[in-house]
Parts: sequence; structure tokens; C-alpha cells
Amino acid sequence: MSVLAAQLEFLLELDKLKAVLRRTRPVGMTRYENSAEHSWQVALMAMLLAEHAEPAVEVNRVVQILLVHDIVEIDADDTFLYDESAAADKADKEVAAAERLFGMLPAPQRDAFMALWREYEDRDTPEGRFAYACDRMMPMLQNLANEGIGWRENAVRFEQVIRKNLPINDAAPTLWQHVLPRLEAARDAGWLT
Amino acid sequence: MSVLAAQLEFLLELDKLKAVLRRTRPVGMTRYENSAEHSWQVALMAMLLAEHAEPAVEVNRVVQILLVHDIVEIDADDTFLYDESAAADKADKEVAAAERLFGMLPAPQRDAFMALWREYEDRDTPEGRFAYACDRMMPMLQNLANEGIGWRENAVRFEQVIRKNLPINDAAPTLWQHVLPRLEAARDAGWLT
Repeated sequence: MSVLAAQLEFLLELDKLKAVLRRTRPVGMTRYENSAEHSWQVALMAMLLAEHAEPAVEVNRVVQILLVHDIVEIDADDTFLYDESAAADKADKEVAAAERLFGMLPAPQRDAFMALWREYEDRDTPEGRFAYACDRMMPMLQNLANEGIGWRENAVRFEQVIRKNLPINDAAPTLWQHVLPRLEAARDAGWLT
Repeated sequence: MSVLAAQLEFLLELDKLKAVLRRTRPVGMTRYENSAEHSWQVALMAMLLAEHAEPAVEVNRVVQILLVHDIVEIDADDTFLYDESAAADKADKEVAAAERLFGMLPAPQRDAFMALWREYEDRDTPEGRFAYACDRMMPMLQNLANEGIGWRENAVRFEQVIRKNLPINDAAPTLWQHVLPRLEAARDAGWLT
């Protein structure tokens, strides 16, 4: 297969991410959002909020990380952040997914996409940590604007939200300072148990 | 309102693009795709196919253009490429949409987002032209993989597809050379009239 034919086959394979559903609803909609439209929104979020990253980040790499970070869900499906039993075999499934999916690409691009995905997973660079912070912030903002529906339906506990989202504070402390009192108010309103 | 509050309000406004439907279906799905998930896919397309751009482009700006290019559809809705009667008032509606939506942002970001959108619309830079080429290529690839369903349902003519998509040849001639014989085969198969 030519390089171009391989690239185009991968591009069409990406259509499948449009069928992977998350536990979050877009504000004002009854359906769940899918991981493709979510990836678009968090990539834009990184562009918009880059000034809040500490230390400063190379924003274009954060955007690339976020465009790529959920592709593995085509094979591994979305794992709900607060489903702690599902977390156990998530890593193995996602590695196999990354190898199959990025393995569709010519070698240099395969390696570049794999590196972007690993940077998200490993969070050992400021860009990886800020990408992760954006990915964590967005569903909290959507839940806060939606009367906590995603939390209420899944009986999410306040303590879980704090523990799982605290890494935001390492990458963008002003974002964490903004959201923390709103989470406390959500708990007081009964949206979080 | 603080700068951060304005940025977050804009981010949640973006949820509305997830409800704007196009005339293309993701491969293998019966539903139409929305402009948010489409924007994600074409941004990745630019990353994947940048080597085909002539002249060479600054790929990160192409990615940013493509993340932003459809936001105006939140107010102006998607205009089907082959609906030539709808094209007439499209530009006015989209300018008003850009002013309202990007006007939600603090001034420097408002101007940056407006400039990215204009670069797509004006196509007077290699980056704007390559972004446009990606945006044109993707639904053709989806239709070619879907037995031309989007073309057949809308009685799209071969001559229209050639005329509307020929700008691809100015930005990425190898992509055009790849797709042209496939379009001729689609015409011969009766998918295009």
C-alpha cells in the first residue's frame, strides 16, 4: 500500500471514534457526547486557556496531544473516570489499541502519534500534564452547567471528584482555584454525594 | 466578567456545534455527522497529510484554522457545499456569527480567532488553502467509502464535485491526483449524475 493510501485508511478508521460514547452530555442536549467531538472541544480549550498553564507550555503540542489522546478508545472504549473497577485492565487494552491503530500509519507517523499518546498517559512533561488538566476540566464544566446530571446519574462522590481531578492543580492552579468552590457548591446542592 | 469566566462561557457555547448536522455520514453509521466531530477529524487530517501540501505549510496553524473554521455554524448552520441557492446569504450570516461568537472572548483572543476563521474563508495563504483542501477532501473520502450515499441522496452531479473541489489541486496536487480517478469511477458507478 502506498504511504498516502495507508494515511487515508487510518483517517477513515477515525470515523469510529464518533461512535464511542462518554458519560457526559453536551450542555442542553439529552444525548451523550462522543469522544471525537469531545477531542475537538478540549483541543480548542488548550488554545484558549494556555495562559493558565504553569509552567508555560508549547501550546501546539498540547493541541496535538489532545487530538490524538482518545483514538485508542476506538478499540478500548471509553472508561468512566469514576469506575474504579474498570480502571484495572484499561492500560493493557489501550496499549494493544495504540499498537493496532497507530500501526496502520507509515513508521515515522506511527512513532509520532504513539509518542503524543504516551505523553498524555505518562504526564511527565508540562504539555502532557496540561493536556490532562484540560481533559479533566471540560466534563466538570459541563456537569456544573447541567445541574450535575452526569454525576447524579452515576452516584459520583465529592471525594472522588477531588481526588481524580486534583492533577489539574499541578498543571494549571488558577483553573483548580476557579473550579474548587464551584465543586463545593455542587456538593452542597446535592449534585455530588 | 473575569477573563477566565469569559473563556469558560465561550467553551461551553462550543457545545452547540455538536448539534449542527452536516450531509455526510461517518462510514458505517446511519446518522449524519456533526460539525464538531468533523472539525476534529480534519484537524488530524492536516497533521497526517501535511507532507502533501504545496507549497509547504506551517502545520500547527492549519490545525488551529481547522479547529476554528466551523464555529460560526453555531449561529449560521452548515451550508451544503452543493446547495448553490443557499450560498448567497451564507457570507453575511457567517460574519454576524463570527462577530457574536468570537466577540465573547477577551480582545486579543477574539482577534486571533477571527483571523484564523478569515484565513480559512479567504484562502489567501498556503495554510488557508491547505485547510480548505482538507475540509473538501474528507467528505469525498467518506462518500467514496459509503457507496456515494451523501451524493446519491442529494442528486449531486459529477461536474459540481469537480468544480467545487478543484481548489484541492492548488494546495495539495497529489491529493487531487489521488481522488480524481476515484471520482470518475464513482460517476461510472452511478453514484454521481
